[in-house]
Amino acid sequence: MKEKLVGVNSIAEALQGRRKVEKIYVLEERQGKRLQDLLRLAEKKGVYIQELSRQRLDQMSPGVNHQGVLAIVEDYPYASLEEVLEFAALQGEEPFLLILDGIEDPQNLGSIIRSAECAGVHGIILPRHGGAPISEAVSRASAGAVEHMLVVQETNLVQTIKKLKDAGLWVVGADMDSTQEYFHTTIPTPTVLVVGSEGKGIRRLVREHCDLLVKIPMHGQIASLNAGVATALVLYEILRQRGTP
Amino acid sequence: MKEKLVGVNSIAEALQGRRKVEKIYVLEERQGKRLQDLLRLAEKKGVYIQELSRQRLDQMSPGVNHQGVLAIVEDYPYASLEEVLEFAALQGEEPFLLILDGIEDPQNLGSIIRSAECAGVHGIILPRHGGAPISEAVSRASAGAVEHMLVVQETNLVQTIKKLKDAGLWVVGADMDSTQEYFHTTIPTPTVLVVGSEGKGIRRLVREHCDLLVKIPMHGQIASLNAGVATALVLYEILRQRGTP
Repeated sequence: MKEKLVGVNSIAEALQGRRKVEKIYVLEERQGKRLQDLLRLAEKKGVYIQELSRQRLDQMSPGVNHQGVLAIVEDYPYASLEEVLEFAALQGEEPFLLILDGIEDPQNLGSIIRSAECAGVHGIILPRHGGAPISEAVSRASAGAVEHMLVVQETNLVQTIKKLKDAGLWVVGADMDSTQEYFHTTIPTPTVLVVGSEGKGIRRLVREHCDLLVKIPMHGQIASLNAGVATALVLYEILRQRGTP
Repeated sequence: MKEKLVGVNSIAEALQGRRKVEKIYVLEERQGKRLQDLLRLAEKKGVYIQELSRQRLDQMSPGVNHQGVLAIVEDYPYASLEEVLEFAALQGEEPFLLILDGIEDPQNLGSIIRSAECAGVHGIILPRHGGAPISEAVSRASAGAVEHMLVVQETNLVQTIKKLKDAGLWVVGADMDSTQEYFHTTIPTPTVLVVGSEGKGIRRLVREHCDLLVKIPMHGQIASLNAGVATALVLYEILRQRGTP
């Protein structure tokens, strides 16, 4: 099956990432340096480019800000857990993974993937059922980072955690009910961070398989961070504790 | 002048915050526990509540997900720099401030205010010209945190920085061209963090008045975090270094 991507960032990163771009539709009145750069890159890669009127482009991506460009791409190429661990080994780094136990909002999922990519996470594991899958909206919200990230879908996260423990990883869950503040806790490495869904947090069975639970301290009256921000905070704290490579 | 707020979070926090709520319009078919809680709180505060049809409510907040409730509130009550420093003193805490030098996207501004409120920031300073002001969209994106945060508008940020230096604060700028990684740098306290606009960063003259510039390390191929996430990372690192109160 084919998917659509829209927007300059998503498509530019897809051209440089792991996904095959089959065709690009662009507004007749092409505008902006970033769009020109994108089209040059696409030409170099031999991608077929077709001009369209604004009306046709709007029809092809209803209700979405396409920024004058739309691409037909292959299905998102999910990776396997083994590929993720191999990728870390090839980089000569201790594995640094992220399990998302049911993030529901594509915006939050995209934001988390973007931050994880910046923090040097080697791979992200999503449940096959429950939670948002990788979609055009996720790609856009990730500023295209999803095209560079290894994302794995697993049916049973408890089994996945057991496999990762066997591979020597420590399983650290982010949980608001923990008594340990994430930045005053020594987080053992290699690490897989587990983050739960926006409303309900980590599911009980998954939480019970974590080696360690940490919370983010709250000093205000609102007492809840955005899920994307919360995940980024713990990821960068793990990066801090790992030391600069 | 009057403003509108929509959505359960924004209005609930306004009722508990610093802004006077004059009137609440609610859908005839009121639904959901959170909305019921909100209306009970409004009644207790003596706020007049009026029922409306969905059509009328949609007309009053075009293009916005009002979640069945809309409030007429006073103008946003900006604070003064002196109030912010007094607030910190009253809390018995070293001042912890944030200057936003031209954040343009209301979503990002709201996200930053939400994270700052959670991190225990005492006040946020915005330029009077350039950058988004506090609006209904900002309030919504902040999950209502803006109703609890002291926000100051200043005409000349360089003068503001000089005043804060005179008050003993250290001025730390977030700048991608710095060579010092934020989490491997000792950040002196009391602190005001300066963050620039999404595209252009801190303006030159403002940057030159910073005591210290720090950057966030990037380990991926995307090399750019969302402005809200980046700001939250540095705020929570400052919180970590201040130690737990």
